[in-house]
Amino acid sequence: MNGYGLPGRGMPKIRVIQYGCGKMGKILLRYLYEKGAQIVGAIDTNPDLVGRDAGEIAGLDVRLNVPVRDDAEAVFDEADADVAVIAIASLMEDIYPYMERAARYGVNAITTCEEAFYPWTTSPALTNRLDRLARDMGCTLTGSGYQDVFWGNLITVLAGATHHIDRIEGMSSYNVEDYGLALAQVHGAGLTLDEFDQQIAKSESLPSYMWNSNEWLCSQMGWTIKSMRQELIPLAHEQELYSETLGRTIPAGYAVGMSAIVTTETYQGPVIRSNSVGKVYAPGEVDRNEWTIYGVPDTTVKIEGPATAELTCATIVNRLPQLLDSPPGYYTTEKMAPAAYRSYPLEFYVSEMPVSMAAL
Amino acid sequence: MNGYGLPGRGMPKIRVIQYGCGKMGKILLRYLYEKGAQIVGAIDTNPDLVGRDAGEIAGLDVRLNVPVRDDAEAVFDEADADVAVIAIASLMEDIYPYMERAARYGVNAITTCEEAFYPWTTSPALTNRLDRLARDMGCTLTGSGYQDVFWGNLITVLAGATHHIDRIEGMSSYNVEDYGLALAQVHGAGLTLDEFDQQIAKSESLPSYMWNSNEWLCSQMGWTIKSMRQELIPLAHEQELYSETLGRTIPAGYAVGMSAIVTTETYQGPVIRSNSVGKVYAPGEVDRNEWTIYGVPDTTVKIEGPATAELTCATIVNRLPQLLDSPPGYYTTEKMAPAAYRSYPLEFYVSEMPVSMAAL
Repeated sequence: MNGYGLPGRGMPKIRVIQYGCGKMGKILLRYLYEKGAQIVGAIDTNPDLVGRDAGEIAGLDVRLNVPVRDDAEAVFDEADADVAVIAIASLMEDIYPYMERAARYGVNAITTCEEAFYPWTTSPALTNRLDRLARDMGCTLTGSGYQDVFWGNLITVLAGATHHIDRIEGMSSYNVEDYGLALAQVHGAGLTLDEFDQQIAKSESLPSYMWNSNEWLCSQMGWTIKSMRQELIPLAHEQELYSETLGRTIPAGYAVGMSAIVTTETYQGPVIRSNSVGKVYAPGEVDRNEWTIYGVPDTTVKIEGPATAELTCATIVNRLPQLLDSPPGYYTTEKMAPAAYRSYPLEFYVSEMPVSMAAL
Repeated sequence: MNGYGLPGRGMPKIRVIQYGCGKMGKILLRYLYEKGAQIVGAIDTNPDLVGRDAGEIAGLDVRLNVPVRDDAEAVFDEADADVAVIAIASLMEDIYPYMERAARYGVNAITTCEEAFYPWTTSPALTNRLDRLARDMGCTLTGSGYQDVFWGNLITVLAGATHHIDRIEGMSSYNVEDYGLALAQVHGAGLTLDEFDQQIAKSESLPSYMWNSNEWLCSQMGWTIKSMRQELIPLAHEQELYSETLGRTIPAGYAVGMSAIVTTETYQGPVIRSNSVGKVYAPGEVDRNEWTIYGVPDTTVKIEGPATAELTCATIVNRLPQLLDSPPGYYTTEKMAPAAYRSYPLEFYVSEMPVSMAAL
């Protein structure tokens, strides 16, 4: 519980800038408000959003009188925020300017950016630059989301009931129909298996997000990585399958998507093999998240149809008190306690004084 | 990592007495030894075990030259142990003398006793007496096992990805055929539904172990309990089912076992409804552990065929460093970090000096 040292005065709310008010930003705004955060800024460059009230964007019944603005520097300059919640992009090179801006203002930041979950070896230069800046400015930067719990602490908690681990195998699936044409194409949807082999499997593909989460798991377990590799394997369906995103029917036996399998060997022995499955779903298929720890004993956990977007946003919001209590720098979440459910307003869970209170 | 302050000298192993060398004790001895503990005593009163080497009992390839003894006081007196691992009974009134003995010698103790997982309201007098004794003697007592992870931190970790919880529903099943005639009878196996109603449902049954784990969850979540109740509901099978334990066939429509449903209401709103299913399994049925968090969003987790005994023993052994680092008293595990996998010998994870080192 809180130790701001203002007994009887009511604790200050956590002051948040929502940076990116799109699909995830809207959910984040609602969860933030409902968990007692004070929305002090909302930033987006989409002209359909600029000028609208953050409360309306969030689907709240109250106006917050905080308009979405596109002049980010001015918002940071005027808002005196404790935290920026950044939901804009998936790769470190894309998210860097936004994280850098928050850090430059000494504002703690947490992002949905998938690579930011554990970017130390996929983008070391950018991450170390942000780490240095955040240390200098006395704020903390991190990445979180669905994978923090479902590819991270869920596995760690089951490992806590395990005597010996030989190997951890994970599988997480998503429907490429949910993400638009560009994503469907890089997953090889609609290609023949030969075309997949030429155009996708042999390309210098970016690591899947499970690359970062495997590294996160190793860091949390105290395992030293010996090797990392990724294979891209086409997935075919035995019947033809209509893809709305492609606007055509994929013939039987053609690729409907792919598995990106990341295998991590460690010097301590355990091997992590994570399979990220992205494909055009057949009727009745739902998202799945399944992990097996092989060792003494074997344990399998299954999550059917996880609400990925909501789980991502809830995890991020639940992480806010821990973000404020973490040391300055780029501080990845495997070094924090697991994200925890918040029954009470967020400020009740902060032990250290947030940035905005430092002057009192 | 360890801070004994003896750089370059090798860290002292954790000195353990295994108290109870039966079904669980054998697994515990093996896991303890394999994780680097020093077995300094093994206690059991079973004449088939007394005098045999603890290494042989554990199925190790090495002799430990620690015989199983039945003179418990002498073992505690001679062993100078850091920890007693107690695997003897399931209820606080049965485990009390063993916990009391460890505490009297100032030896930390952890037990598989199911009620001991959170005994504060089912056995307050015994628990508070142990708490007081342990504080006076400077040692820590706790209970752990399968439920610590699978009815406890597994749920807590998923709650960390949840924005709002209305209700938590859990179901854990076991085959009464695995536990002998007495257990099959108190589960009503073989009774007509009328007989079940008269003999089982209306009896003053002991709370199921989920009573204690519901309370554990509430304590960890910071929820205040408004009401607790338990219902016993007979389970019938649509075909006849042969029970080896009963030595006869249970007719179709007769009780093959029961559900013990514990419902916990909280002042904070969330309701926990946990269902412990014990019955004669039909062919193909396996143990299951399934939990759903209902709220924003809903999330369901399933574990199929968990290796309950091994998971219990691994969790207990993984908890040892945290037991040594906890404050004196009866200190239940919801106040500790989740049990963590141990890649290295247990002593590497202890930050405080164990009891046996205090004199150095």
